[in-house]
Parts: sequence; C-alpha cells; structure tokens
Amino acid sequence: MPSSPVLFLATIAADGTTSFAPADPGAPQLRVDDLGATRGDGVFESVNVVGAVPQSLTHHLARFARSAAMLDLPAPDAAAWTDAVHRAVAAHEPGDELLAKLVLTRGVEGSGVPTGWVHVFPGYDYGTQRTAGIDVLVLDRAYPSDVVTRAPWLLQGAKTLSYALNQAALRYARGHGAHDVVFVSADGDVLEGPNSTVLAKFADRWVTTPPELGLLDGTTQGRAFAWARARGERTEVAHLTVDDLRTADALWLLSSGRLSAPVRSLEGVPRPTDAGLQAELLQHLLTVHE
Amino acid sequence: MPSSPVLFLATIAADGTTSFAPADPGAPQLRVDDLGATRGDGVFESVNVVGAVPQSLTHHLARFARSAAMLDLPAPDAAAWTDAVHRAVAAHEPGDELLAKLVLTRGVEGSGVPTGWVHVFPGYDYGTQRTAGIDVLVLDRAYPSDVVTRAPWLLQGAKTLSYALNQAALRYARGHGAHDVVFVSADGDVLEGPNSTVLAKFADRWVTTPPELGLLDGTTQGRAFAWARARGERTEVAHLTVDDLRTADALWLLSSGRLSAPVRSLEGVPRPTDAGLQAELLQHLLTVHE
Repeated sequence: MPSSPVLFLATIAADGTTSFAPADPGAPQLRVDDLGATRGDGVFESVNVVGAVPQSLTHHLARFARSAAMLDLPAPDAAAWTDAVHRAVAAHEPGDELLAKLVLTRGVEGSGVPTGWVHVFPGYDYGTQRTAGIDVLVLDRAYPSDVVTRAPWLLQGAKTLSYALNQAALRYARGHGAHDVVFVSADGDVLEGPNSTVLAKFADRWVTTPPELGLLDGTTQGRAFAWARARGERTEVAHLTVDDLRTADALWLLSSGRLSAPVRSLEGVPRPTDAGLQAELLQHLLTVHE
Repeated sequence: MPSSPVLFLATIAADGTTSFAPADPGAPQLRVDDLGATRGDGVFESVNVVGAVPQSLTHHLARFARSAAMLDLPAPDAAAWTDAVHRAVAAHEPGDELLAKLVLTRGVEGSGVPTGWVHVFPGYDYGTQRTAGIDVLVLDRAYPSDVVTRAPWLLQGAKTLSYALNQAALRYARGHGAHDVVFVSADGDVLEGPNSTVLAKFADRWVTTPPELGLLDGTTQGRAFAWARARGERTEVAHLTVDDLRTADALWLLSSGRLSAPVRSLEGVPRPTDAGLQAELLQHLLTVHE
C-alpha cells in the first residue's frame, strides 16, 4: 500500500510570524493567481528524511533563508519551519526515505501575503542510479562565471521555483540516452547539475565547485566533505574544467533525494567509478543525522 | 465596486482534447505538487481584452503553442482555448480593458495530465505610464546573442512560468527609481524587457529586435508594425545596440496589458518622446480588433 503524503500549510503574519496546520495534499490548495504558480516567484528546499530524521535541516533552512533574501521575500521563521518539518514527518507513515519539500512563494498577486507549505512524501527510488551509476552529459549554461557579481538580478545561486530550464535540461539528457547533466559556464567552468552538486575525487583530494559561480551550496556535499575530512582526506572548493571531470579518479552528482550517484560515463565516454567508496559514502549519507 | 475575476479550468484528455468549465478564482484550484507551482514548469500568455474583444488572440495562441512545444508539453487545443477565452470574457462584467491569462502547466507531478486555465480580470491601470512615459534601465542578461542555437535547453524565446528573474529585474528597476528594464546580451545586442518588446523609431523607420536572439515575438509589436506599414512607413526587424536606443527619435516598450509606454529616460538620461505619435499608436492598439 503506498503511503499517503502529508501537507502542512503556513499562515504567515505581516511580522513574519508563521504557523502551520495540516491540509489535504490531494485537494487543491493554491489559487491560480498565486505568484508561485504564475511566475515561479518563490523559493524551495528538498530535504531527505532518513528514519524519520530530516538530514541537514539547519543547512537547508539557512539556504532557504538566503534564497528568500535574494528574491526580497520575507525571512522564513526558522523555528516554525523546523517545527513544521518535524510534525509533518511524524505525521507520515514511516518509510526508509522520505522527502520533505519546503516552499515559500510571493503569494496571491496583490495580497502581499506569502504562501508557504511543507509537503512530505515517499522518496523516489534511486537504487539503480546509486549502485549502477549514471550517464551524464555536459550542457552549456551560457552564463559567464562572474554572473553573480555582474548580474545579481538573474538570481543565480538562489533555489527558486523557476526551474523550467533545469527540467528541460533533464529532458534533454533523457532524450539523448543519459540520466543527468552537468552545466558548464560560457568560459568553461564546471558548474553544477540541474538539481545536483558535482563531487570529484583526485587521489586523496575531494573537490567541489565554488558557490561564487552562482551555484547552490550543496547540503549533501557538505555532509560528504565532513565525512571525507573525518577520514583524514583533503577537501577543496576549486574551479574544475570538463577535462578535470574526465580525469578524476571518481566523480559523483550529489543531491538531497538521490544522495550520491556515481558518474559512470561523461559525454558518452565511460569513466571509472569506485564501487567500494560509493558504498561507504552512501552508507554515511544514509545514516548521518544532523 | 471592483468587478470579479472569472476563471475557467481545463480538463485535458490524453489525446489533447480539452474542455473548460467555470470555477471559483477566489478558491484554491491547484495542488501543491502541480509542476507549475513547484518548478515553474509551464507556459502562459496574457491577452489584452478591449471592449470584450481579445486582441491578437490568434497570434497569442500560436505563441502559446510554440512555447508548449519548446517545453515538450502537449499542443494546446486551439479551438477549445479560443472558445474558453471568449466564454470567460463574456462571463466577466464589462470593463474598458480586461486581461485574459492563459496558463498550461505540466500538471500534478507523476500524473502525466497537464493543468490549464483561463483567468480573466480587470487590467492594471497603466494610464500614467502611457501618457507620462517610463524611466528604463539597461540590464545585462548575460547570455550570448546565439543562445537559442547554442543552448536550446535554456528555453530562451519560450514564455514559461519560470519568470522569477524577470520579476527580480523589475524589482531592481523599482529599487533604483525606474519603471522598467531592457535586457542586453553579453555581446551588446538589445533584447527585450522582462515582459515587453522594444520598439524604436528612426525617421520613418520602425525597428524591433530579432526573435532569433531568444526573444518573444511580440503580439503588440505585431499590431504596431501593421499600423505603421498602413501609414506608409517602413518596419524592420534589426539588431540594435544601447547607443541606438539612445539616439532613436522615439522609443517604446510594448506589452499586452500596458500596450505602448514611451521611454522618457534611459539609464537616467532623459530622451525625447513623441506625445502625438504615442497618442495615435495607443489609440490604434486600443481599438484594433483581430
């Protein structure tokens, strides 16, 4: 029997004070003139929940607040959102992995009142991608690597609801026999996936790409780095090229739901994976609680 | 007494056949897991309605279909959408100018069934912008001018629900004492506004910028060009630079709701407007029926 999603809807007062109440996720809850629906004008986070514990919730909420600030949305009431996530998870039937989606929109046009919700549902099954690995294409993001300082109005680095192009990039990958995509800047900097962070390993050095390029500060990558450091290995935020991705000893895409997916081919060219290391990393990501 | 918006919700069958039924626009109508709301994954059109006649509806529907195709959404049933717009407009209390918003999303995640609606409501009051003109800033869009051929997955030229950055650009303008923005490509090509088309006049030559740059094919600009040609003047789709905008005899931003807004300053520098010509153009846009 499939378990039933749980929804908590926010009531957000003018001073930002927020309370949540349960609602029916199978029934309509949003008006057609909510700016989240008409303009993708809002922000979100997807939090992996393992054994009823939301992973990296503090990090997710910090990023949620940063995205909201970049969109001039009111600061989310961290205590209320934290409490709502815990209550919604507790209200859900137990599952090995759940996903908690936190969404804050600019609300009904003209109302000045944001819309918010926490939606908890069973995670997708990424078993095959985690064990067999994924085929990844490189796609041009067509922005220069200094886009954040040069054009902050483009909102690069904010996790907004305007993800149509990320969805299109994933459709492009599937349409070309691949699972996922890594974006590259106009000047050749490896960026991130449409909903993932790049993690590369060179000897004992673990590398991810710089958020200053307009990337999300990966929550799963943060846990992976902490784990690598605890093993006595080096972690580094550094610029990477596609050639670096080709020559890395191992390469992953990390995301909240999928956790770690080894990249087994890049642009159609098979590349090495490290099954033992992936098993250890995934095991850590599936058990760490913070 | 403010008049009440009218909403018609679509039911879209697997073969694309679409029917519409009235619904309450003041009540929730969308689920929180509709991909329109969670990913900005959908397309829209905003149609100006003058004296109960939707302007350029055929052109809007052609663009709606083109946007849907770019997002791999099912082709909208043109006859059904046309009929729904007419029925929704007829159901609305008469108003000088109404706006009809047509929206098609990818629907509830996992359902495979798109969500669609037609929402008719009173147009915003653009009287002052139409007569006094607008102050416009130039913002970097940071894409190269060949973005469409180089990176079609970025969906430039599709009118998607992922408009967070367009909203951010308009907030930037307001935060800097301006009304609107014109985007420029990384290589200096004038593009379009966040929700408008550029129209410039040089002597008897009317110019707009090329859709091949990843721009929307402006419906209001189409009517303006037809009017200019009927007056015996030249119309041209051509590349423009910011210097061209500075030296144009007159400059407008055109959009469905606002129709024509004369640009009275660019980057804080006053520039000439032509009040007589604006009056004639606006009068035409307010009366033409097609």
